[in-house]
Amino acid sequence: MTLLNHQFKLTSRPQGNVKRSDFTYTSEPVREPADGEVIIKNLYLSLDPAMRGWMNESKASYIPPVGLGEVMRAIAVGQVVASRNTQFAVGDHVTGLLGVQEYACSNGQGLTKVDPQLAPLPLYLSTLGMPGLTAYFGLLEVGKPKEGDTVVVSGAAGAVGAVVGQIAKIKGARVVGIAGGAEKCRYLVDVLGFDAAIDYKKDNLIEALKSHCPKGVDVYFDNVGGEILDAVLTRLARGARIVICGAISQYNTTSVVQGPANYLSLLVNRASMTGIMVADYYPRAMEALVQMGAWIAQGKLKTREDIDTGLAHFPETFAKLFSGENNGKLILKVAAD
Amino acid sequence: MTLLNHQFKLTSRPQGNVKRSDFTYTSEPVREPADGEVIIKNLYLSLDPAMRGWMNESKASYIPPVGLGEVMRAIAVGQVVASRNTQFAVGDHVTGLLGVQEYACSNGQGLTKVDPQLAPLPLYLSTLGMPGLTAYFGLLEVGKPKEGDTVVVSGAAGAVGAVVGQIAKIKGARVVGIAGGAEKCRYLVDVLGFDAAIDYKKDNLIEALKSHCPKGVDVYFDNVGGEILDAVLTRLARGARIVICGAISQYNTTSVVQGPANYLSLLVNRASMTGIMVADYYPRAMEALVQMGAWIAQGKLKTREDIDTGLAHFPETFAKLFSGENNGKLILKVAAD
Repeated sequence: MTLLNHQFKLTSRPQGNVKRSDFTYTSEPVREPADGEVIIKNLYLSLDPAMRGWMNESKASYIPPVGLGEVMRAIAVGQVVASRNTQFAVGDHVTGLLGVQEYACSNGQGLTKVDPQLAPLPLYLSTLGMPGLTAYFGLLEVGKPKEGDTVVVSGAAGAVGAVVGQIAKIKGARVVGIAGGAEKCRYLVDVLGFDAAIDYKKDNLIEALKSHCPKGVDVYFDNVGGEILDAVLTRLARGARIVICGAISQYNTTSVVQGPANYLSLLVNRASMTGIMVADYYPRAMEALVQMGAWIAQGKLKTREDIDTGLAHFPETFAKLFSGENNGKLILKVAAD
Repeated sequence: MTLLNHQFKLTSRPQGNVKRSDFTYTSEPVREPADGEVIIKNLYLSLDPAMRGWMNESKASYIPPVGLGEVMRAIAVGQVVASRNTQFAVGDHVTGLLGVQEYACSNGQGLTKVDPQLAPLPLYLSTLGMPGLTAYFGLLEVGKPKEGDTVVVSGAAGAVGAVVGQIAKIKGARVVGIAGGAEKCRYLVDVLGFDAAIDYKKDNLIEALKSHCPKGVDVYFDNVGGEILDAVLTRLARGARIVICGAISQYNTTSVVQGPANYLSLLVNRASMTGIMVADYYPRAMEALVQMGAWIAQGKLKTREDIDTGLAHFPETFAKLFSGENNGKLILKVAAD
């Protein structure tokens, strides 16, 4: 093989927003697989908010930070192009932590085969991947919506939020999405069937929550933290469940994270706030995928991907997550299927 | 009757610390009971942190605020001195929301008889009263300590905290109390049998938590909020349960409440933070009282009361709760048993 592998290596810890200069864009020859290894050609990279956390030098996180000089970590879907592992054949499509690069070398650990006949490959990075599983288990296992409950979700037009809202609708809840901009809000209501949407860039949050959640909020699925979390805390119903899935508003902060000043609403309302990590549910992924596959086939669960093309654009495409420019699951296509 | 009833009426909403000038100290003749009413001579008033919240004009709380011009609300133990209610006879001892005054008039609603033969009257305001029930149900129903868990409690020398720690010990947990001052810390370890105590006024909280909770914190029972809550959040074990019982460090704030900046530790550690209100458990009070009565008799559950004397001292005695000057359950004795 004389293939060249372009890679983004993390070379400095970003301060605030991620910049191109935090990475080095390098290339090296693709090596032959050793015994037990496979070489994968990456096709689609998943760009996820969690990646921002992986860039920080944090002491106690759920996963070690990406080391300086290492290829940036990312989930991807790719195709096996060389194999010395009996479990994976050339031509197989796989997903796993393949990194921000054109070719990945793997010993097979953490690699899962996916079938392009069953679903378009990008779907394995969105509803049938990590974001979908996060939404499914976070909502159903921790949020526990009951029929007639009011469910509010922030980052509602994002990869996780859109699935949360649609599953809540399937379960018979009243669903209110919070997103930025009129287009996203229209999409939530007109395409995904949410009962209402709040545009946090334009609407008065507290007033909008009052009018759209007259009986209070029973389940709040939080992807954003900051002021939106604090606003929803003022509108909790008795016994409300808050699912802490992320805090995208805080990931680029260069000062201290904004804690929820209204947290004593938990006390008055006998409410809970619980953090979730999708990895805890991976052993149960099958049940969620079977169910979501059925809902997709029935037209009850819609997905939208926002696909940019070209590995070289990684830093700028990644930044769209934080400016809210992406419409749906953000993916970087790095090679033709 | 020509008895005179001295009363503290709330006449302005306190800003920050409660001052004598927020009340008017008045007197009026005790009236005859109407049909169905009883007149109660108050003996012991319970001074509780929650009373600070009742003084605020809050829109959405669990209980309406005390109205301006009304007698300040307080739990008390007293003795029936006149009765036109067949359920209560002259001489009966009762507890309920009897107010910061010498005599209360009641139609019997919310009034519970207590037996001075079974326990000294002040105990019905501490371990066998609201603080004890708060500790019992908050710890066991929400904190759910398992044998070998590390349980941390703040306000540990207070009426709730001391009971929380002792019940956690009975349940086989390692118990670390956080309190202010060497005397309180000694009391926790030497008298109540806590495994360790942290003096938040002197010790480095993070370092002390590291050394006393080497395997992390499984259950944190929070009575104080603020910096202590944030410090414990940095030391959570996987799956930790935080019980939000109160936030005494924040009750007198004149600016915005300090939200827990480290709340994303809930996410990383799949931990939860849940508010409790003792009133939800009143229908189950009997089971707790029978159990705690037994533990008291067996010497496993100790109580300390800090009893000041004289209704006229109410504002200054109440302030001791917030300066941390009280040693144990703070009570104001207003008449001889």
